[in-house]
Order: sequence, then C-alpha cells, then structure tokens
Amino acid sequence: MTLEAIKYKAGQLQILDQLLLPAESKYIPITGVKDGWSAIHKMQVRGAPAIAIVGCLSLVVEIYDKQYDTKEALKKEIVEHLEYLVTSRPTAVNLKLAADDLKTLTGDLLTNETVYVDGMKQEAIKSVERMLEKDINDNRAIGDNGANVLLKGVDRPLNLLTHCNTGSLATAGYGTALGVIRSVNERNLLDHVFCTETRPYNQGARLTAYELVHDKLPATLITDSMVAALLKSRKIDAIIVGADRVAANGDTANKIGTYQMAVVAKHHLVPFYVAAPFTSIDVAIQNGSQIKIEERPERELTHIGEQRIAAPGIGCWNPAFDVTPAELITGIITERGVFKPCELAEKVKPK
Amino acid sequence: MTLEAIKYKAGQLQILDQLLLPAESKYIPITGVKDGWSAIHKMQVRGAPAIAIVGCLSLVVEIYDKQYDTKEALKKEIVEHLEYLVTSRPTAVNLKLAADDLKTLTGDLLTNETVYVDGMKQEAIKSVERMLEKDINDNRAIGDNGANVLLKGVDRPLNLLTHCNTGSLATAGYGTALGVIRSVNERNLLDHVFCTETRPYNQGARLTAYELVHDKLPATLITDSMVAALLKSRKIDAIIVGADRVAANGDTANKIGTYQMAVVAKHHLVPFYVAAPFTSIDVAIQNGSQIKIEERPERELTHIGEQRIAAPGIGCWNPAFDVTPAELITGIITERGVFKPCELAEKVKPK
Repeated sequence: MTLEAIKYKAGQLQILDQLLLPAESKYIPITGVKDGWSAIHKMQVRGAPAIAIVGCLSLVVEIYDKQYDTKEALKKEIVEHLEYLVTSRPTAVNLKLAADDLKTLTGDLLTNETVYVDGMKQEAIKSVERMLEKDINDNRAIGDNGANVLLKGVDRPLNLLTHCNTGSLATAGYGTALGVIRSVNERNLLDHVFCTETRPYNQGARLTAYELVHDKLPATLITDSMVAALLKSRKIDAIIVGADRVAANGDTANKIGTYQMAVVAKHHLVPFYVAAPFTSIDVAIQNGSQIKIEERPERELTHIGEQRIAAPGIGCWNPAFDVTPAELITGIITERGVFKPCELAEKVKPK
Repeated sequence: MTLEAIKYKAGQLQILDQLLLPAESKYIPITGVKDGWSAIHKMQVRGAPAIAIVGCLSLVVEIYDKQYDTKEALKKEIVEHLEYLVTSRPTAVNLKLAADDLKTLTGDLLTNETVYVDGMKQEAIKSVERMLEKDINDNRAIGDNGANVLLKGVDRPLNLLTHCNTGSLATAGYGTALGVIRSVNERNLLDHVFCTETRPYNQGARLTAYELVHDKLPATLITDSMVAALLKSRKIDAIIVGADRVAANGDTANKIGTYQMAVVAKHHLVPFYVAAPFTSIDVAIQNGSQIKIEERPERELTHIGEQRIAAPGIGCWNPAFDVTPAELITGIITERGVFKPCELAEKVKPK
C-alpha cells in the first residue's frame, strides 16, 4: 500500500507530521485554516505541491460545515482565509497560484446569478478536491508513462536509482520519480531500487527511505559519493530524478547532486530520466543558465540537528540545486507522455 | 604553521587526541607502550602510517631512560613490547611491518659483538626516530613534486579540490594529497582549496577541514554531491586525492567517492592526481579488479554518533573504498617524482 501523507475525505483532513519522520509516524488532524497555516509554517508538510494542497484543503475543512447567509459573506471569508494561508511560507508559489485560482473562481461564482450560496460553497469545495485528485492522477500518469518507457523491450525486473525525495511526502500523493518506481513495482518488475542519502538535508535517507520501507519495496540506501561505484559494480537500468524547474530547452534544475549523477550516468551509458508534471516546465526560461540557484545556510552542512559534524571555522558552499543540461537527459517523463528534452517546448500547450 | 598531530622530541611524546576532534584540540602524553597501545586501540590516533609511528615511538619512550644490564635483557623487552603493541588493532599492517623491521634490527645488534648494550639501545631508538623523519620527508617530497607539476607553466594561484583526509592526521605529518596543497600554499600560489565532507565517516568535514582551518588556508567545505556543480561553476585547476593502494597498472583504490570524482573530472577536463608514497604501490596486484573492497557496517550511514539519521528499516550498501581506473588518472605524485600510471611498475625498485 502506497504511503498516504495527506488523508482527506469529506471535510476531514489529516497529514503525516514530517517533522517527526523518520523516527515517528504520526498523523495530525487539520481542523481549519489555523492548523493548515501552522502545519505549513512549521514544515510539518513540505514540498510545493503538498503545501498548496494542504493549504487549500484546510480552507475546505474550515468552511465545510458552516452556513453562510450571503454569497458576499462566503466570498469575503474565503478570500480572507486564503490571504492568511499564503503568509505561512514566503516562497510557497504553488499555494499562491492555487489561492489566486480559487479567488478567481469565487469571484466568478459571486457574479453568476444562477448559483446560490450553498452551490457556491459546494463549487469552491469541489474545485479544491479536484486539485487533490488531479495531482495524484497526474502522478499516476507519470508513473505509468515512466514504467512503459523503462520496460519497453525488457522482460526482466529492473534495478533503478533515484535521488532526493519525489514521493508521497513531496506531492499530493504517489510521487513523480518515485511514482515511476512505484509503477514498475506494481507491475512486479522491480528488482531493486537504490536511493542516495541526498546531502546535506538528507531527504533521501530520511524521506525516500521511509517511503520505500513503508511500501515494502526492495531498497538500499547509498551515499551520494557511491553512485559511480554502484553503476560500475552492478547493472543499473536507469536513474530517475524529479525536477524543480525545467527550462524550454530541457535543461533541468533539481536537488544538488542531480547533475553529478547525470555525468556519471553518461560515463556508464546508463539512461537518465527526469520525471516531472507539466506545471514544472517553464517555457519562459530559455535554458538552464537563466535559472537562479538558491544558496542555503552553511549550517545544513555543518550540523545534524544540534550536533556539529564539521570542524569549527570552516566555510561552506551550499547551493540547493544544480542544473543538468538537456544533452545528459535521456527523456522527460510527464503525465502526457515521455519526451526528449528538445521536444518539450512544443508540447507545452493546453490539452 | 602546519598541524603537528604527533609531537616527539628526545624521548617525550604527545599526540593530538583524534577522538575529540573537531570539537576539541587536546594533546595527550604517551608515557610508554601501555599508553601507545591504548591510544591506537581507542583510535585516538588513526591512519596506517600514523599508527605505526606512534606505536614504535611509544616503545622508544618506554625504554628511553631505562638501564639494561645485558643486550639479551634489552632485546627481550623490545620484542615483548612490540608483540604487545601489534595487538592494539587487528589490521594495523604498517605497525606489524615496522615491528618486524625493529625486531630484525635488534636481533642483528644482539649478535654484533662490536656493539654494547647502551649502543644497542641508541641504535634501536634512532631507527624509530629515522622512521618518523623519513615519513615526514617523503611527504614533503611528495608535496614539492606535486606543487611543481601543478604549477608548471602556471603564473597564477591555483584552485584545488581534495577528498577524505590525507594530512597530518593520517600520516606522520604534513600529508600526501594535503601535503601537495600545503606545498602550493607555502609558495603563496594557493587561491582556494575545496574539500568534500567524505560521507559516510566525514573525514573531510571533521579532519581535513580541521587541518585547513588550523593552517589558515583559504578553504571551503562541500558535500560529495557538489563536485560536478563546483567544476562547472568555477575554474578548478586540479583534483588531488590520496591512495590506499595502487596496483601495478596504476589502478588506484582510495576512499569511496574517489572514482566518482575522477569520472566527473574527466567530463570537465580537470586534471586528476593521486598522491601516494611508494609504500602504497603494490606491484603484486596487477590491476584494480584484484583489490578486495572492504564493506563496512550500515550504522556509518544510518547514524551520526548515537543519532539516527536514516529511516529505520532501510538497508545500506557501504563499501569503504572504490577503484579508480588508471586511464582516469592524470599522474601519480610520489616522493621520487610524478609518473603516469603506466610508468609506475618500472619505477618500483629500490633507489
């Protein structure tokens, strides 16, 4: 059973508290926007798609059982709650975009005279519920498309390698790169999956390993430095990673270490795939050189929790992402199919 | 001033307690073979050359001020102490070899009728003191030869990258790969040195970073996953690493992650050097495929001290070393000069 980090049903919401992972698996109830804001702010939920979903679902929970006298009163409350929610994390762009969409919808419903106040509430709720479904469905489609391309012409179980966390803990559910691995496993064609610990924040060791253990996949953790040794000593069929942003030419920004894995994959002639929804493709960015790389605090390298692990006084370089050039990417796995990086730009148009 | 981890003068010995590094820099006195055995056993001193030196020096300290009535009594005591010392670490091969040499010397002196008991003691002491000097001198020669080759035809300061710890904390002093970097710096031609943290045991973050801070070298720590991003974003003149063992054809076993750095160096056209004394070259091994790679406990990946950092239940792969094929190595820097890997075998003969 795939890990479900966001549990929602009919106005009831629970999320897996990621601050306690991997030591403890505890679901916490989100009973309204205050809980939602706090969970996002304290990083009990992380990952841009997951933040957007949890924020909007907390609004749904807030209004689910309430009665509103007028459409104006409902609209006022929805807008106020959304404006409050987007202050939870300064860089939560996905939540901001989702909030804008919901505000637009509410505005349209307000001026639509065929809709009454209860219908307006139901429409708003359904639009958020559809958002959750769409994200999971897109991930399942990515998983299927990825499994198809990896298994094409192959009649034996695969050995796969992934980086960072791209699973149920980073998305609305199922995952992107990890979704592809889950899909291969659901077809009983996964021999083994390796995941890197993903220094310095250890999303691989903490989160991906947690998901792999939860789902009972045959899995092994390695350090980021072992990728080349692994590819040399064992037949690895493909490396699959996620994407933070894909430029129009297919250059891909992703968690630091991704570019190095792509270089090592090329040296060993191992296919290197990026799994990402179309929402991660930004055709306004022509190529990777235009992607600004966030540099994060030195403390991520020098400490684990409160424990210092590096010599005092040493300076650190801590870029959060790197850019993998399109020519090192075998294919980009999306919900609409698997494309060569150079084919991507023309595919970015509404279905 | 170069970090001095082993301080010895005229029968007095102190070592830097590596168990307390990098948090605390404390020298502990070694007053005889019991202290020596304990320091090696508890890993207050680490690294094969350093273990051999500290073990033998602890014997020197033990006998330095004692009087012996007969040569037989002296020999008996030296042999007993050496047999005790070699039990401190089961795999301390360098210490075993040094002990064997010292036993042979003592045996020769015993049968040499021109030598009296005091002279015999002085000879034994001097042979150990020479061992310390030779190791440091060899490292300084490696450093000079490395600086010469790196600076050939270059009239500006260098940016260098290293892996693991190959400095004063792993050798009798000065270091191999780190010795090369120290030599470049002593010529005022070091712009910047980068060191990888070297997961899973973090020798780079703990020990190399400690030495770089101590020596006030312009230095920056990166994760093992950032090497490719570093080589892409900044001009790095060379990568220099140490060696655990070099095969006859130049294939080199070194700390896990070395092979990956060599692959990444090739992709970016960055020279990749191995710095190692001739004692690390083993011509009995024809090539790297014959080098057995030690696999170490999973706990090194899953814990930092007592703190668990990986999801419970995940399995790990933890090879301590990998093998870099000779074709990825630009040159091997030794105390006798810098050689192409293919030139190595013919150079291995006594001077």
